[in-house]
Amino acid sequence: MGDGQATRRRLLEAATAEFAAHGIAGARVDRIAATAKANKAQLYAYYGNKEELFQAVFQEQINAIMDAVPLTGKDLPGYAVALYDDYLRHPELERLAMWARLERVPTGELVPGDDAQEGKLAEIVAAQQAGLVDPEMAARDVHSLVIAMSHAWSPVSLTFVASAGDPAADHDRRRAALAAAVRAAFVRPDPTEA
Amino acid sequence: MGDGQATRRRLLEAATAEFAAHGIAGARVDRIAATAKANKAQLYAYYGNKEELFQAVFQEQINAIMDAVPLTGKDLPGYAVALYDDYLRHPELERLAMWARLERVPTGELVPGDDAQEGKLAEIVAAQQAGLVDPEMAARDVHSLVIAMSHAWSPVSLTFVASAGDPAADHDRRRAALAAAVRAAFVRPDPTEA
Repeated sequence: MGDGQATRRRLLEAATAEFAAHGIAGARVDRIAATAKANKAQLYAYYGNKEELFQAVFQEQINAIMDAVPLTGKDLPGYAVALYDDYLRHPELERLAMWARLERVPTGELVPGDDAQEGKLAEIVAAQQAGLVDPEMAARDVHSLVIAMSHAWSPVSLTFVASAGDPAADHDRRRAALAAAVRAAFVRPDPTEA
Repeated sequence: MGDGQATRRRLLEAATAEFAAHGIAGARVDRIAATAKANKAQLYAYYGNKEELFQAVFQEQINAIMDAVPLTGKDLPGYAVALYDDYLRHPELERLAMWARLERVPTGELVPGDDAQEGKLAEIVAAQQAGLVDPEMAARDVHSLVIAMSHAWSPVSLTFVASAGDPAADHDRRRAALAAAVRAAFVRPDPTEA
């Protein structure tokens, strides 16, 4: 990695931590530059203003979770549990997304015109057509509900936020409850396995 | 209402709007005082510092939703739908709670030692004992999941936030999906109605 590339990477990592902790208004560009051992001129040259830096960080995090936890219409319970585990490893994305929601996009779609979102809905529609997911509910509602259920103990839960250091039995109990609830709410027995 | 009481009420209302919009760090005490047609000395005399004012606002909002939407273990689907409707009327509470989560309490219980919370769990346990709610899941997990599901289109949704002005058919579609999902996930047929 060249010096410029290494600096960009350090800036992005420092910015991820700073925005996740303090939000968009609360983030301090000075702190990001200092943590990244860079200067503000480099930060502005690479990423434009604070708003654009936030967008770069947010987009990178969305891509990372999409790669790590793809939605499979055939296994919505497994998808929800994989999200539960990913939030434990990477609490940053959910916090970044929530700051964007509170500070920038109070109503409607959080990321309008998101192609990845379209792909996820197509996965759910395909599973509905195959008889594996309740066809009575709109695919977008199934998606919103599954994501919401995966958030039950996430960094954006309003009841209890789980931590990686919680007892293993607690994690197992929550994973089992989440999988059972998603299965009961949306999944239909595979019609090809009679 | 005496002058002092009227001023306190105006301060609380202005603070609710300010904190809901901007969070704790982002709220400006000057703006709250100006909106309430009061001065900062009055604000500090009545409510202490900004942190204490936030706590007063948050507690008042929690009490209001507990009064408006009591949890009934016998009707979790109805409880979730009543929350959906309350968020449309009063988006402030969910936003205030999420600012508290992001800015103050990143892990664990959002409101530790909450008596009202204990009451809600007791309601769910009683419904489990009566055979009306899945007894396999811990009551606290049922509670976290139902609250999370009620948030699917709330001001703290990371997919789509509903607005009171959305078409009535959209609200009805979401209410039906929410009630059906909660029913399928947790509710058992009443054993006394055979």
